[in-house]
Amino acid sequence: MNGIDDVARAARDASRELADLAPHARAGLLLAAAAALDESAGELVAIGERETGLDSARLRGELTRTSVQLRLFADTVVDGQFHDARIDEADGDFALGVRPDLRRALVPIGPVLNFAASNFPFAFSVAGGDTASALAAGCAVIVKAHPGHPELSRRTAEIVSRALADAGAPAGTFQLIEGQDEGVAMLKHPSVAAASFTGSLGAGRFLADVAASRPAPIPFYGELGSVNPVVVTPSALAERADAILAGFTASVTGSAGQLCTKPGFLFVPAGSDVGSRAGAIVGEIGEHRLLYPKIAHGYEARRAAVVSTPGAEVHAEGGVRFDHQGHGWALPTIVSVSLSTLVRERDRLLDESFGPLSIIVEYTEADDLAAAFTDLFEGSLTAGLHLGAGESSPWITALVEAMSQLAGRVLFDGWPTGVAVTPAQQHGGPWPATTASTSTSVGTAAIQRFLRPVAYQNAPAALLPPVLRDDNPWNVEQRRSPAGESRRWGEAAAAQM
Amino acid sequence: MNGIDDVARAARDASRELADLAPHARAGLLLAAAAALDESAGELVAIGERETGLDSARLRGELTRTSVQLRLFADTVVDGQFHDARIDEADGDFALGVRPDLRRALVPIGPVLNFAASNFPFAFSVAGGDTASALAAGCAVIVKAHPGHPELSRRTAEIVSRALADAGAPAGTFQLIEGQDEGVAMLKHPSVAAASFTGSLGAGRFLADVAASRPAPIPFYGELGSVNPVVVTPSALAERADAILAGFTASVTGSAGQLCTKPGFLFVPAGSDVGSRAGAIVGEIGEHRLLYPKIAHGYEARRAAVVSTPGAEVHAEGGVRFDHQGHGWALPTIVSVSLSTLVRERDRLLDESFGPLSIIVEYTEADDLAAAFTDLFEGSLTAGLHLGAGESSPWITALVEAMSQLAGRVLFDGWPTGVAVTPAQQHGGPWPATTASTSTSVGTAAIQRFLRPVAYQNAPAALLPPVLRDDNPWNVEQRRSPAGESRRWGEAAAAQM
Repeated sequence: MNGIDDVARAARDASRELADLAPHARAGLLLAAAAALDESAGELVAIGERETGLDSARLRGELTRTSVQLRLFADTVVDGQFHDARIDEADGDFALGVRPDLRRALVPIGPVLNFAASNFPFAFSVAGGDTASALAAGCAVIVKAHPGHPELSRRTAEIVSRALADAGAPAGTFQLIEGQDEGVAMLKHPSVAAASFTGSLGAGRFLADVAASRPAPIPFYGELGSVNPVVVTPSALAERADAILAGFTASVTGSAGQLCTKPGFLFVPAGSDVGSRAGAIVGEIGEHRLLYPKIAHGYEARRAAVVSTPGAEVHAEGGVRFDHQGHGWALPTIVSVSLSTLVRERDRLLDESFGPLSIIVEYTEADDLAAAFTDLFEGSLTAGLHLGAGESSPWITALVEAMSQLAGRVLFDGWPTGVAVTPAQQHGGPWPATTASTSTSVGTAAIQRFLRPVAYQNAPAALLPPVLRDDNPWNVEQRRSPAGESRRWGEAAAAQM
Repeated sequence: MNGIDDVARAARDASRELADLAPHARAGLLLAAAAALDESAGELVAIGERETGLDSARLRGELTRTSVQLRLFADTVVDGQFHDARIDEADGDFALGVRPDLRRALVPIGPVLNFAASNFPFAFSVAGGDTASALAAGCAVIVKAHPGHPELSRRTAEIVSRALADAGAPAGTFQLIEGQDEGVAMLKHPSVAAASFTGSLGAGRFLADVAASRPAPIPFYGELGSVNPVVVTPSALAERADAILAGFTASVTGSAGQLCTKPGFLFVPAGSDVGSRAGAIVGEIGEHRLLYPKIAHGYEARRAAVVSTPGAEVHAEGGVRFDHQGHGWALPTIVSVSLSTLVRERDRLLDESFGPLSIIVEYTEADDLAAAFTDLFEGSLTAGLHLGAGESSPWITALVEAMSQLAGRVLFDGWPTGVAVTPAQQHGGPWPATTASTSTSVGTAAIQRFLRPVAYQNAPAALLPPVLRDDNPWNVEQRRSPAGESRRWGEAAAAQM
């Protein structure tokens, strides 16, 4: 495994240089990568179409998302708030004896290994969010390519590597490796300081266990799977059934449902015609190639289990046709069950179906939904609720509370697919949505995964990192704790009582 | 295991209520606990003296630290900045299509299991920093008592429980359990959402593995062990040898060296008389009881291995005397080795010696120190450097860089023991100092361990948590991202280049 060792050493050496780069230089690397991707859009999208079966409009949009994301992180670097710079002034009058000058900031954690996803060949792959946020944090990145799009991975890596080198990045800033054994070996390498992953529950759990059982365990940020339940209230359905049906079916079938935020369950009032209408709408949708044969076979097995569940009414049978290359082509599937059937058949129905399939769940008592959510669902990336105009009630409050317990994002009158890349985005959630519910893999807060705090006590200014110096050459936000305040600790709180 | 189940359920129910408590009410719980501890100081310190062998001045100071810490976290709750509240305004002109109204804040993670430490029977035990920061975060706390001070644990828990109940805390807010099997069973309980630990490498690794191998893994914040190397430059030694010797020996022998920040290695210029002088100073120090017999036996085995290492010069032999109750009484130990001996005998010398023992390492080439630190040391809570007045040089810069790679706190012209409880404190570090180098267990940032983010998309104001509402009833800091800014992403960064 000499190659692994060389790659890891290069990443380690590059990380040390990257950590010291001034913000504009580090941001410049991200901007250079963004520009290079935009310039190569035509070539990359064509490779992506051939390798993934996703259409060019989707891929072009995803590539734009990817370069925009790199630019957002360039601004995040320059802003510098993510350093969480804190300065405690020396305090001779401190409550527990003399307090030294103490300064704390977040610094890069070290080389990051990023296991690329198959379903977003740009945005969650070679130059996607994990890579952007790790580079922004000042960490060298090693990407383990997903075997679903090898040529696209290599070409993207070439373009990004060239752009980074031309912009002055240290050698080893960005490297691509391929192969499952190589990925596992790299995850075990002592120089790797953190890892990220987007993929299946099985692979994610395996890698999380590898990371946790290293001689020196490291953080493993895995985004594994999600069923994204959505509830429609009777009022919402009465007000805008057409819009809800259109949004739901588009969200379920877009990209052939191969999105981690696809709504896997739609809760509607019993007696509605949502199931039959949704079945009719998706029945008009043509077949879509699935990403690669393994996903197609896994999805078809799930689909067969779902449609044959006792008590399930099938509104669109769907199915997967395999072509002579082994690729699966899927038609969408819609079934409905009663809430009591879902409870009874939970072991069969609750797993994620990674493809164009959703289960409509008919409820009779809205008051039961909060308890049902708590009882039925494990962690999920999202949960959603469609309300009537101005609608409120105690059961809605309780349901939103239950949703916020199980999901990282609770959304109203919308659909979970289409994840904005913004400062307030949260793409994460309790297990099994992710291995680390305290983090996000989308949005500027994703940078926090690749930082660790270091405090400096009574340090000479010349030996402090720039973000902690009084002259603040990087112009970042610094939170100061003035001398004397400790004598008043508790008083501010007490004054409020 | 019915008891475990009942405790976990009560904690789960209490966590839901605590999460919704207004800041002044949540802070009030912490203030009530602080006041109750202060009122019972005499009784508690007397029990602590008997059970731990620590003296009353130390214990009284530690109890004050504990109540001050609770008051600091009360203010942290009222301040509310820890929620990291972010508001993205809806943006029809967003770079990637219409951006919804998106609001993200950190919310309590759920019930926290805190494994208490032996060596700080107040500050890292029943009502210590882990408990204070978890309650401040809005999480119910289950403390697994350390068997080293069972009566003190029970009495502290009674006092805190009474105070919390009188202040209106929900039942189940704070509970004590005892026993190793009970602790492990609780760590496996599905209702426990996170765990903290301060203790040995062996126990910490065992528990971290339990947490990681749960069906649904949870964050485990363990602080395990540290050797805290300190370097003295020739200039510093020439300027103030007496002060350095006094500080060093006090830091090594205070509380019989049973502190995770005890300086285990002191690097001094070869040819100095630091070893013999330190040996003479500690030779005047009387014996001190070690915390409990298991620690005493472990320490004595380490001490015997260190003093018999080929190439080690013994300046104070020290040793442990066992009394008829089985308690060990230690005299301090000082040895010196050359840097080359340390490198050769690293497997024997580099492990932590948890007791009044330190190894003086004589270096000949200061230029070698940075590389030696990188080569020799695993993660440590701290690393220290004593400089001459105004001293600077490339090797010092390189050494500080190496120190910041391996430690969570880098300190100058001081000693690592005595950890200020402040906003900028960092008590953590890379493995094996902790299981999670991205966190701290001391200071206000410790609250971050027990929070997870949730985003709300297009939520009606009435269904938002108070910290995310436009009327901001809890008066916390909110970071807003205005509409329109995405069109400029990358420009701010580009403008700097």
